[in-house]
Amino acid sequence: MDTLRTQVERALGEFVERRLPASGESEFAPLRTAADELLSGGKRLRPAFCYWGWRGAGGTDVPGIFTAAASLELLQASALVHDDVMDKSDLRRGMPSAHRRFQALHEKSGWHGSGEQFGEGAAILLGNLLLIWSGEMWRNSGLPPESLAAAQPVHDHMRSELMCGQYLDLLEQAHGENTFESALRVALFKSGKYSVEQPLRLGLVLAAGEVAPWMDELCTGYGTRVGIAFQLRDDILGVFGDPAQTGKPAGDDLREGKRTMLVARTLAAASPGDAATVRHLLGDPDLDGRGVDTLRQIIDDTGALQECENLIGDYLGEALAALDQAPVTAEARSALTDLAIAATSRKT
Amino acid sequence: MDTLRTQVERALGEFVERRLPASGESEFAPLRTAADELLSGGKRLRPAFCYWGWRGAGGTDVPGIFTAAASLELLQASALVHDDVMDKSDLRRGMPSAHRRFQALHEKSGWHGSGEQFGEGAAILLGNLLLIWSGEMWRNSGLPPESLAAAQPVHDHMRSELMCGQYLDLLEQAHGENTFESALRVALFKSGKYSVEQPLRLGLVLAAGEVAPWMDELCTGYGTRVGIAFQLRDDILGVFGDPAQTGKPAGDDLREGKRTMLVARTLAAASPGDAATVRHLLGDPDLDGRGVDTLRQIIDDTGALQECENLIGDYLGEALAALDQAPVTAEARSALTDLAIAATSRKT
Repeated sequence: MDTLRTQVERALGEFVERRLPASGESEFAPLRTAADELLSGGKRLRPAFCYWGWRGAGGTDVPGIFTAAASLELLQASALVHDDVMDKSDLRRGMPSAHRRFQALHEKSGWHGSGEQFGEGAAILLGNLLLIWSGEMWRNSGLPPESLAAAQPVHDHMRSELMCGQYLDLLEQAHGENTFESALRVALFKSGKYSVEQPLRLGLVLAAGEVAPWMDELCTGYGTRVGIAFQLRDDILGVFGDPAQTGKPAGDDLREGKRTMLVARTLAAASPGDAATVRHLLGDPDLDGRGVDTLRQIIDDTGALQECENLIGDYLGEALAALDQAPVTAEARSALTDLAIAATSRKT
Repeated sequence: MDTLRTQVERALGEFVERRLPASGESEFAPLRTAADELLSGGKRLRPAFCYWGWRGAGGTDVPGIFTAAASLELLQASALVHDDVMDKSDLRRGMPSAHRRFQALHEKSGWHGSGEQFGEGAAILLGNLLLIWSGEMWRNSGLPPESLAAAQPVHDHMRSELMCGQYLDLLEQAHGENTFESALRVALFKSGKYSVEQPLRLGLVLAAGEVAPWMDELCTGYGTRVGIAFQLRDDILGVFGDPAQTGKPAGDDLREGKRTMLVARTLAAASPGDAATVRHLLGDPDLDGRGVDTLRQIIDDTGALQECENLIGDYLGEALAALDQAPVTAEARSALTDLAIAATSRKT
């Protein structure tokens, strides 16, 4: 896995350097710095699912697969920077979010106009650049044209699906039913699919040149389930995560009022009084430590936390059973097992 | 030209309908409506430059060229919706801008949270969807793979260049020198290149499979110059345009404080007192009719308006002279002449 991470990071570094040289015209330097920051962290999960899909379907270690897999990090970076603008988030991985960086540059430099508007505008453009680059890096990976042609419809679909999923999320926050089912659907479309299922499918199709029935079964049986469990873990970390590890303030999802599966379970199981408290506190931008503790207590007391932990375990078990049935190579089976566990038991 | 417009609009309609059916899940209906609105107007200049590049280099009337050319309208629509978010513009072609439409939907529906934030978020996602679709429609135009492969680097370059150009524009507004030269550079990178030069280059390369030296000369000699004249016309319309035709309030660019070539020429030629007045009024969001008249008067009195009109004439003349030297077909020469005149003498 270390080798994979190294290869992915090398491919990203080389690509970005070609597109926006660090030594180039200095007026673009803030774009480059922000891109580097966005691309510097992360678990590289999406490239790993893609790579092990490729290996699982018989692909060998050629440089192109690392480049193709790494391009998924550019898509993810694009989604993060736009997400932070949309949510007006100040922090990303413990550091100022991209639009706040651009805003700070504006204010520090004493430029004309609104620093906030400059920051958001620059971040929207940076996100667009990363989105454009992700497609370019993917197509120019050096993999055989027939492999890329076979996988391109999956790639196209994934990108539109991500945007539509994020739109569903906006709707769900604005007027959703906030049931477990509706939260699950949003989680799947907004994140689960493009974090696990689609990267895996891309790797499989790149290697095989087609989507064989067993691949579809693996993408659903393993990919979808790991994707949901990944999001359930995200829900839990958003409430109970350690700020030192997540890089976000404690209980940040509560302050943002995110309508997650965890919150839906809590509301469904809470007494009328507790449910009213949750509805009252959730989304309060000034929610303090005491408010966070109150909500955590209710989420724990209703059994929702344990229920979500159990669901993660169930989904993981089903995913590994599906993986067991798939005719992937032994090495890929072992790596995909580790990845599923890592994705669902992570601390950040 | 009517046929070209009809073909472009048919291709756009079919593509969007396949991606987001009007009869599909109704929760996406507002995205579709906003996309239709963005795609319904416009002069179709970019597809026309692409098409006539293709014909000029010997391409014949195949359906694929209309699809490829039409895809440029999706890129333009993406840029418009993001631009309006970045500028916080209320109107686009006389109708509410996309983010204001989404905001109105939120407020009319009595949903939770901030309508403004919902509107901007939805518009960012819509812009991303249109950006993704533009690449997809381009690649799936049905033109021969070798043509598309030859043109792809130009296509990739154009998209990154547009985003970098828009970033330069943000910088220029925030702390630029506001000289004619700096405004010209921004105009070229932000709009001129992807409005004229690059669409033309795409058409030429698609047809010829390579960039022959005469094509480069035509792209620079004709394309760059028409692009600059196109932007100069834009600068003039932004100050003196008829709201009934532009769909924007009178003097909108003045209220937004845009640092255009026209403004740069005015500042360079104005008396110290007039220059101070311009600097004072430019960018005042509450600028009223009287303020607009004051600025118009100064822009006229300094001779900057006439100077820009003269420049448009000069650039157009040089462009047509360059076109005259290019070995394009007679039909293409005639159409590119008409297009250059239309792009630089337009009222909207």
